[in-house]
Amino acid sequence: MNDTKTENAFSRGGDAATVEDRDVLEIVARLHDERPADIVETLNALSPDEAAAVLLHLPIDRAIDVLDEPDLNDEAEIVPLLPRDRAAALLSGMSADRLADIFPEFDEVVQQELLTRLDPEMRRTLKQLLSYPEETAGSLMTTEFVSVPANWTVGQTLRHIRMVEGSRETVYSIYVLDPQNGRLVKAVPLRRLISADPDDSVTSAGPDRKPISVTAMTGSDDVARQITKYDLLAVPVLDGEGRVIGIVTFDDVMDLMIDRQTEEVHRFGGMEALDEPYMEIGFWEMIRKRGGWLCVLFLSEMLTASAMQSFEGELEKAIVLTLFIPLIMSSGGNSGSQATSLLIRALALRELSLRDWWRVALREMPTGVVLGTMLGIIGIARIAIWQETGLYDYGTHWHLIALTVGCALIGIVLFGSLAGSMLPFALKRLGFDPATASAPFVATLVDVSGLVIYFSVAILILRGTLL
Amino acid sequence: MNDTKTENAFSRGGDAATVEDRDVLEIVARLHDERPADIVETLNALSPDEAAAVLLHLPIDRAIDVLDEPDLNDEAEIVPLLPRDRAAALLSGMSADRLADIFPEFDEVVQQELLTRLDPEMRRTLKQLLSYPEETAGSLMTTEFVSVPANWTVGQTLRHIRMVEGSRETVYSIYVLDPQNGRLVKAVPLRRLISADPDDSVTSAGPDRKPISVTAMTGSDDVARQITKYDLLAVPVLDGEGRVIGIVTFDDVMDLMIDRQTEEVHRFGGMEALDEPYMEIGFWEMIRKRGGWLCVLFLSEMLTASAMQSFEGELEKAIVLTLFIPLIMSSGGNSGSQATSLLIRALALRELSLRDWWRVALREMPTGVVLGTMLGIIGIARIAIWQETGLYDYGTHWHLIALTVGCALIGIVLFGSLAGSMLPFALKRLGFDPATASAPFVATLVDVSGLVIYFSVAILILRGTLL
Repeated sequence: MNDTKTENAFSRGGDAATVEDRDVLEIVARLHDERPADIVETLNALSPDEAAAVLLHLPIDRAIDVLDEPDLNDEAEIVPLLPRDRAAALLSGMSADRLADIFPEFDEVVQQELLTRLDPEMRRTLKQLLSYPEETAGSLMTTEFVSVPANWTVGQTLRHIRMVEGSRETVYSIYVLDPQNGRLVKAVPLRRLISADPDDSVTSAGPDRKPISVTAMTGSDDVARQITKYDLLAVPVLDGEGRVIGIVTFDDVMDLMIDRQTEEVHRFGGMEALDEPYMEIGFWEMIRKRGGWLCVLFLSEMLTASAMQSFEGELEKAIVLTLFIPLIMSSGGNSGSQATSLLIRALALRELSLRDWWRVALREMPTGVVLGTMLGIIGIARIAIWQETGLYDYGTHWHLIALTVGCALIGIVLFGSLAGSMLPFALKRLGFDPATASAPFVATLVDVSGLVIYFSVAILILRGTLL
Repeated sequence: MNDTKTENAFSRGGDAATVEDRDVLEIVARLHDERPADIVETLNALSPDEAAAVLLHLPIDRAIDVLDEPDLNDEAEIVPLLPRDRAAALLSGMSADRLADIFPEFDEVVQQELLTRLDPEMRRTLKQLLSYPEETAGSLMTTEFVSVPANWTVGQTLRHIRMVEGSRETVYSIYVLDPQNGRLVKAVPLRRLISADPDDSVTSAGPDRKPISVTAMTGSDDVARQITKYDLLAVPVLDGEGRVIGIVTFDDVMDLMIDRQTEEVHRFGGMEALDEPYMEIGFWEMIRKRGGWLCVLFLSEMLTASAMQSFEGELEKAIVLTLFIPLIMSSGGNSGSQATSLLIRALALRELSLRDWWRVALREMPTGVVLGTMLGIIGIARIAIWQETGLYDYGTHWHLIALTVGCALIGIVLFGSLAGSMLPFALKRLGFDPATASAPFVATLVDVSGLVIYFSVAILILRGTLL
């Protein structure tokens, strides 16, 4: 089926100059001097059919560079539209880590057809990379790095770099291996190498320290942390024996950081993170990502109806109390959402660890009381002003109602700050990502308790008068 | 005052071996082989006095590397504790961009005392860097880059790099300048240079394209976008004449991205972003950052009390309606928060631009209706189950109440999705950062309208029965 489509798309590539064909050639001509990242922007605005036609007409080196760009959308649709041999040639030229990212997105039939046509070296590498679970160093790494034995000289190493430069993702870190067992001995920056004496041993050009490294199973966030902490261009990935099996480069980590940021904001907004741009994602996929959490939150929030039902007697006696329910509940949610946002980041940045929870609680308690008092004073002033100016009549006991609102606000903001700050710790303790704690999640958690606090304060203060 | 403190801190540095002194020397010995980023972690756990003592005892090169690390806290307190001449020597050795970051944090007296002692070249650079506004390429850039005239050969350039390598932040991009007017002609990667013929002209080793560049006033987010989009190690900063005045390197951009992510999450949580770690920030500073927005949101949310007051008649006739107020309001807030989180990221990543607002609105409308219908069905089922099983008696008109809740949910989720998605566009249109739209902000916006929708639906459906 896909093959017929390919034929249709590319019979156009022959002599029969249709309008679409001229369009494609015009686009190809215009893209000639553009950078790969800019070509990608143009392709993303085209249909997969058109994008495939453009890719087919670009010089093969340029087409490979374009496929290597992580921002290209729809590669899973574009590549199968190309003649299989051309597609296999393009994929064989790609960087191994990027190929391992897109390959699983193809249909199984397409995967099989392409796999048999891939360059055997690339096929082996691809299989190896695909064997690592997602979100690990193994799944992020590329195998195109430069390594030399420790008994080489600086001059030998530089000659080697000149030869392999074109086929390596980076040559700015050179990995020096023990010639006996292949273990990583040193990581020598190219800048040190070029200022060293060519006759010196390559090991003497590097720093004395053991190089920073990760294993294939190191989590991708930890890889990012190593690279940003030590300002590395790349970090080597070692196997159990200490041999280099790949490297993760800084640009892959940057892309990862951007994806993580999107993920974190989506999840904090109370939904599953979208992994595609807003306008690209299917309607029902969007409903699924948003509807799931929305229903869970709705079901939990139903407890507020039950809480209200249990205070039915009080509600009937003092309807005036209902006027402030939304105001009071939202204050709890807001203070909780602030505290959660603070703790999610503090935990993500490792500024705090699990055992610091009590230090945070000790900090949130006075913070909650001060913030609650601020809101309480405003709330009391609001009621007093409306009453005194005659804007609204809260009844003879209006000062008691104002006191109830003020005291309830202190209790609720205190509770919100505490609950909001402890939730990320609780999630982490239970083995979840602390960033699962979304603003709506905290608000829901705080709402039920907020109602109970409000009515309890009301019963305490208003017993014998309104209640 | 600071000077006396310095004397106290460093008279200990003499022969009188106090306990603290031995502690410091022990720490210094332990840190001897550590990487600067690891030394920083140790210093951050010490008091400024102790950290200054350690810095004083470290070899000067190591101490400079430590000060160059952006993760060092309290450098504004540590540096003034050092003898002025030592401090000036350290600062003169730092990378210019990092010095420009920390220098403004010193007291004015300290700034003056240090400035006169700085190496004249560094003093001039520092003054230049400090003249650019924050959050611009000018404030991020460093002046330590490698440039050569376009009439040099590859061999000449490599010899030059070997000489200056030690004093440059990066040598992996070489900027080739027009020998006449100093304008940037090319950016040649070092990897191309070492594989080129030493007798070739340096310009022939570079790519044909005009190099990517920014100006000193380019916003830091745009700089980050250029670097991540084109996978650059560094981007040159040009003046009005096209001459290179500095470069921004990828590691500075990574640090910026991490700060931005924290900022975005804090702001989405409904507060001003903290610029220091949670446990480092002062109590009243924290109150200020959280209290401001909390008060603004509280004042806006007061409109809910006014809305409730205006439906007082309905409330008295049908108290049963109050039971569902928290449930219904929170659903509007949750769907709004989801939509806002989606649009904040889509706008930040430039997936969408201002003029796409109507495409988003057209997408959010059916999404809101479907999500609202899902919640509406659950809400109706909840009321029916409670009623039929005798858990609660909603009165003879319970099916009309259920219908009211169901219809109100559709209206409110639709409104929440629309308002939440349009808010970031509106903020951007008004010249604010779309990320000012926090989850609590959206919830507040949706709450008042949610109440009005709920009571309007109730009046429509229940008129003649309960109302």
